[in-house]
Amino acid sequence: MKAAIITIGDEILIGQIIDTNSGYIAKALDRIGIEVKEMLSISDDKQAILDTFALMQDTVDVVVITGGLGPTKDDITKKTICDYFEDTLIRNVEVEAHVIALIEKALQREASQMNKDQALVPSKCVVLPNEVGTAPGMWIQKGQTVFVSLPGVPYEMKYLIDHQVVPKIVKEYKRPFIIHKTVLTYGQGESVVAERIEDWENDLPSYIKLAYLPAPGRVRLRLTAKGTDRQFLETELERRLTSLCLLIGDIVVGLDEEETLEVVIGRLLTQKNKTIATAESCTGGKIAQVISGVSGASNYYKGSVVVYATEMKTKLLEVSLSTIEAHSVVSAEVAKEMAINCQKIFETDYAIATTGNAGPSKGDSDAAVGIVFIALATPDGVIVEEFNFGQPREKVIDRAVGKSLEMLQKEILKNVL
Amino acid sequence: MKAAIITIGDEILIGQIIDTNSGYIAKALDRIGIEVKEMLSISDDKQAILDTFALMQDTVDVVVITGGLGPTKDDITKKTICDYFEDTLIRNVEVEAHVIALIEKALQREASQMNKDQALVPSKCVVLPNEVGTAPGMWIQKGQTVFVSLPGVPYEMKYLIDHQVVPKIVKEYKRPFIIHKTVLTYGQGESVVAERIEDWENDLPSYIKLAYLPAPGRVRLRLTAKGTDRQFLETELERRLTSLCLLIGDIVVGLDEEETLEVVIGRLLTQKNKTIATAESCTGGKIAQVISGVSGASNYYKGSVVVYATEMKTKLLEVSLSTIEAHSVVSAEVAKEMAINCQKIFETDYAIATTGNAGPSKGDSDAAVGIVFIALATPDGVIVEEFNFGQPREKVIDRAVGKSLEMLQKEILKNVL
Repeated sequence: MKAAIITIGDEILIGQIIDTNSGYIAKALDRIGIEVKEMLSISDDKQAILDTFALMQDTVDVVVITGGLGPTKDDITKKTICDYFEDTLIRNVEVEAHVIALIEKALQREASQMNKDQALVPSKCVVLPNEVGTAPGMWIQKGQTVFVSLPGVPYEMKYLIDHQVVPKIVKEYKRPFIIHKTVLTYGQGESVVAERIEDWENDLPSYIKLAYLPAPGRVRLRLTAKGTDRQFLETELERRLTSLCLLIGDIVVGLDEEETLEVVIGRLLTQKNKTIATAESCTGGKIAQVISGVSGASNYYKGSVVVYATEMKTKLLEVSLSTIEAHSVVSAEVAKEMAINCQKIFETDYAIATTGNAGPSKGDSDAAVGIVFIALATPDGVIVEEFNFGQPREKVIDRAVGKSLEMLQKEILKNVL
Repeated sequence: MKAAIITIGDEILIGQIIDTNSGYIAKALDRIGIEVKEMLSISDDKQAILDTFALMQDTVDVVVITGGLGPTKDDITKKTICDYFEDTLIRNVEVEAHVIALIEKALQREASQMNKDQALVPSKCVVLPNEVGTAPGMWIQKGQTVFVSLPGVPYEMKYLIDHQVVPKIVKEYKRPFIIHKTVLTYGQGESVVAERIEDWENDLPSYIKLAYLPAPGRVRLRLTAKGTDRQFLETELERRLTSLCLLIGDIVVGLDEEETLEVVIGRLLTQKNKTIATAESCTGGKIAQVISGVSGASNYYKGSVVVYATEMKTKLLEVSLSTIEAHSVVSAEVAKEMAINCQKIFETDYAIATTGNAGPSKGDSDAAVGIVFIALATPDGVIVEEFNFGQPREKVIDRAVGKSLEMLQKEILKNVL
């Protein structure tokens, strides 16, 4: 089964909004064995929509469309669907009752005519009820292809994908198996990893595909197997993974599908009943964001301080003024004090601290752009490392976040194994 | 001039990575008057790439392609470009020298053969030097269409867009003018706004297009004018904007192109030399992130505390235990103490605090899912409001962030006008 995902909206084409809907839909379809062939973002323009529908017709089994379902004039998806399917809009009484109730409850006012017109749907479509918004999803077939139209508001789209679209596809279609395994490596670049596994890679069968996903400091290797015999695919993937780990076991840190470093760390901390907090300067809260983004993080993540202003390092984190004056605010000594004091304040087992200059211009210190000190307080003491991450700014921040997590994982393993 | 943006990579099609490159490129092209007709994400598959190139050939002037330029086997863009343009790869000596120097400097080792092969480029292409990475950009023409291929690593892509692609397009092409004006409104829903401006909207000329960009609590109205006479377009847009503001001036909070609420707030704080800090519980640092994401935020943003664990509210923010016991951790009283103490600790003019239950399950308090208290400490005292943002979790967080900023803007205006 093949799918395409279409996002409708000029705000995406002028770069005003980043399309995150397509990624969510792709992941949901991938999980049930549907291969997404293409994602497209197109204009709120009738002809562009019609052309794209025609291009997808009978080349994929499912087309998922988001956007253009609002009540205003620039939302033309519904009318265009009627044109494409030679259909007319009819009023759906269940949807209208839902819209009226929702507006009354949420906004304490009566639904306007424009609100009520959200209940107008193409007569040939199956309505997918939207419990969390006013625009319903629509499921409508032509030839070999089902077109599914969803609102573009992310949480409404997610609700409809999870509660309506995926269950309906699972019920109505037979699908092959797609299995991914992702191996997370760190410390070596893409080309070095590739050279080390060259023979292994050349020996892969045609139904197993390898992809390299490089990020600063780490490379993920994704193996994808596709076929009809799930048992066979699983066994074969496991066999290949084992031989891969024999080759590069020294740099492999995780094995599961979604095993990012922060997920691995989260599991380790939970298992060992350990806690963590962060004190960040140049990384501006991004380490906290990455750690707290893992589901279940409240079990081990106690909180963070972001000390943008230098004086806050002394005040909030009790870094001594004499340390700052003797060594500068970007220094190993300040990073160490930040980490130790953060560990004390939050009463955690571990604390990460960063101080550095991410650029583009020099800050409160004389440190060159790219210099970052990362300190890690552990139950056994504190370690600190100096890095030069170069530039630009976002690379410095990303690499500092990556290195912090690497240091943390190494130390946790040392302490708990 | 029309453009298309193509992203190559299976990691996007299975939802493992969100494509943020296309948005950046779209914004850069829009700024120089190039209209992006379509964005596509396609597979690392030779035939898919060839088909897409053929589809774009002579229908747009510029095709910008990212991804697939790494040194490993799954990176097939270069070979596919050779097939499409009936070309062969040759070694570019300048690029090779750059790669060798970069690897030596960054990694303190010699470049491998795989590194050096980054210098292989199609003979017909113009090389776009990449100062921040090993894979060069490529500019190659066929018929009426220029194909520009860039690496997918975001900061390398951004470097090449800013320093190579945009300057080259500006030098070599005549372009029309596209002007956007965005009006930010808040407090009323999309359909209410639409009804209020219906006559005004119907009266817009064909060369001015209106789009509604709704978000929880606010609606942005984007006007786009396109044509060859810049002066005429500017005047006409201004005239339409003035009449729009006469209609809905009571809910308009900003007028500029990129005027989000956080940008408006940043400008107000900078102008008046006021500062801000945040103390967040249920919003988990997102308010800090939104505020500090504005360029120049270090002028007014002092930092934040994220108090995930209840005990940290007492310890780090000195919220009194008796307040928590008397009123529960999700209460107006706790929010007020958090804000006042945050203002004191960071020595700022303003401080925002949030406490609530974003769901999906109940936390340390008995508050229903969706209940959020937002407190704002100002130079004149502290205000607090209670909200029920319903569910799901991300909607609760987004609306809490939006409401916090609205409350802040209102208070700043009150104090400084």
